[in-house]
Amino acid sequence: MIQFSNRLAQTEEYYFSKKLKEVKALKEAGKNIINLGIGSPDLAPPKAVFQDFEIALQQANAFQYQAYRGIDALRNALVQFYLNHYAVTLDEEEEVLPLMGSKEGIMLTSMAFLNEGDEVLIPNPGYPTYAAVTKLLNAVPKLYNLTEAENWHPNLAELKKMDLSKVKMMWINYPNMPTGADADHQRIQEIIDFALANDILLINDNPYSMILTEKPFSIFQLQNAHQVALELNSMSKSFNLAGFRTGFLVGNALFVNAVLKVKSNMDSGMFLPIQHTASKVLQLDKNWFSALNSVYKERREWIWKIADELQLSYSKKSTGLFVWAKLKGGENAEKLADQLLYNADIFVTPGKIFGSQGEAYLRFSLCVGINDLQICLERIKKFKNKSL
Amino acid sequence: MIQFSNRLAQTEEYYFSKKLKEVKALKEAGKNIINLGIGSPDLAPPKAVFQDFEIALQQANAFQYQAYRGIDALRNALVQFYLNHYAVTLDEEEEVLPLMGSKEGIMLTSMAFLNEGDEVLIPNPGYPTYAAVTKLLNAVPKLYNLTEAENWHPNLAELKKMDLSKVKMMWINYPNMPTGADADHQRIQEIIDFALANDILLINDNPYSMILTEKPFSIFQLQNAHQVALELNSMSKSFNLAGFRTGFLVGNALFVNAVLKVKSNMDSGMFLPIQHTASKVLQLDKNWFSALNSVYKERREWIWKIADELQLSYSKKSTGLFVWAKLKGGENAEKLADQLLYNADIFVTPGKIFGSQGEAYLRFSLCVGINDLQICLERIKKFKNKSL
Repeated sequence: MIQFSNRLAQTEEYYFSKKLKEVKALKEAGKNIINLGIGSPDLAPPKAVFQDFEIALQQANAFQYQAYRGIDALRNALVQFYLNHYAVTLDEEEEVLPLMGSKEGIMLTSMAFLNEGDEVLIPNPGYPTYAAVTKLLNAVPKLYNLTEAENWHPNLAELKKMDLSKVKMMWINYPNMPTGADADHQRIQEIIDFALANDILLINDNPYSMILTEKPFSIFQLQNAHQVALELNSMSKSFNLAGFRTGFLVGNALFVNAVLKVKSNMDSGMFLPIQHTASKVLQLDKNWFSALNSVYKERREWIWKIADELQLSYSKKSTGLFVWAKLKGGENAEKLADQLLYNADIFVTPGKIFGSQGEAYLRFSLCVGINDLQICLERIKKFKNKSL
Repeated sequence: MIQFSNRLAQTEEYYFSKKLKEVKALKEAGKNIINLGIGSPDLAPPKAVFQDFEIALQQANAFQYQAYRGIDALRNALVQFYLNHYAVTLDEEEEVLPLMGSKEGIMLTSMAFLNEGDEVLIPNPGYPTYAAVTKLLNAVPKLYNLTEAENWHPNLAELKKMDLSKVKMMWINYPNMPTGADADHQRIQEIIDFALANDILLINDNPYSMILTEKPFSIFQLQNAHQVALELNSMSKSFNLAGFRTGFLVGNALFVNAVLKVKSNMDSGMFLPIQHTASKVLQLDKNWFSALNSVYKERREWIWKIADELQLSYSKKSTGLFVWAKLKGGENAEKLADQLLYNADIFVTPGKIFGSQGEAYLRFSLCVGINDLQICLERIKKFKNKSL
């Protein structure tokens, strides 16, 4: 009998991979489910994408293998993007690595730094892939709590009390998902200093910096970040290009080259037309983002109405693609999520899939049009009449 | 000081990632290098690709996240492809997993089955990624020799004599790269039986089945393969779509699902227009392959002339995208490869990058047009006059 690897025994199929099969089955059974669960931008990508792509397809080498580092134009465009939006200066030869999405970067970076048994500081609540990848490498997730009381930032005193002797890496994610907390520069500066003092690689997963933020954040705006930090960035949310699979690793040359070494042994360069198109899209100016954010602002108002109807509490200052809303009594929100799915045909993500600190919360996505949000609100009013 | 993982200490940057930088530098210095080193198809992809792609780009969900299993149309098209070309029947729901290239599949499969310290039977000579990925997972490559005397198939008696107690997986690759040996059904059947008897997962890496073969081979044409084997397939060579990053894992549901579990935790579904286009292209009939192979046949004649000029020996029965040619004295071919690069402006791959059993060989790619091959022949005649 051929045995699977041990890593597989502790690996679940990704939550959404399973749950969306159930949603698909319900749809096929005739249910008109509205999906508020997933942060997959439904809005159109920039118009120029189509024309840029068609031009890029005609290039002589469009279908040939590409270099692992990506084309110069793409790395250059990202360097300009960092300069224009974050006021951060990067070296385009050494400090930027295009990826097939930032999710891929979580595995590549972990492989470059983690040995079996190493510990990794992971936020609770947080994106489940941090822990899943850590476990796939037989390293050990060491959860640290984020709480509403501290605006979902790590409690430094608690971190310092932990046994850090085996901790090799720490994941942070600001602007934060699922909570929507924006980056608090002072608190994150303290985390950088903490990481430096303890030889911990600090990685900021940063896909939401352009969505509903006052001012785009990059960890490299802070002091000493280049010595100890990496940042993952992505075009999925900023440009409605989730399926395009384009992300980036950013940081000092030594770290980036280590990740490149891993990457070059396990995949190949990105499809050239994607790279060309991405390098054009990155040059869009602030008007793109203000138009995008005005749509999300309007949708957020509707989600707030839905949350009010469900008597949930939430912050009106949140960033990113989600509203993170709490059952006022603090009870587990999973039951409510199931009721909404089965009795109101609305799929919402229960906060506990992001960790125990999320148990009392539901996460609502802004990737749904106003019409559907209005329908959701009506359904919830009916659902309340039925169930209460 | 932040330390890299141990796996990195034994990981080289992929050979071509390094070497092509050198070739690029030589070109920038004014050298007109002709690249016979890389199997990156230079011929155009099927014409319909462009139109299919442009239609697919216009779909409403073209830029949204996709399911990890791939779209139904793509899995179905691959199942039809296996039926039409290999006479192999597969279940499209459970036995087929689209990948972003078959190279990615080497890592995903290894992660699903290997623990630290497990041993993996790897061909010498063979594609360097098998050993690189094995080492990245802190598993142990256990090389088995392929020799010209046995038409580059494993010697079963030698395999049986090995200590197999820690062997978990075995890589084979027929039609074979770099040697060009076509699959010998009887010998591979024996390997399947050997794998079954020893609880070894057998993986056939199969990107060359449509190139210069008499009859396309799949391991699932052989008895009991479904119990013990997986197969990686790819569109890179069959359809001149190397940069497109589309490949497949094929095999029994239990194995494929294990790999899906890994995959869903480390990347996302493929770009929808790529999936749509790939599903159309897979439906091309035999005329596509006969036209493609007639070009490669003509080019191969020219490579044979070049090899003759260099007094190398080679088999005229070889399959795939390369000619594998030996220095008649059996001496190391790397010196000759360097001389060709620096003195004749021709990049050829020295066989030793595929393992010690390749030391006396050079690998010539068929991915170069007749004009350039004629120039190569002229250059080699001049080079011989200079150096002899």
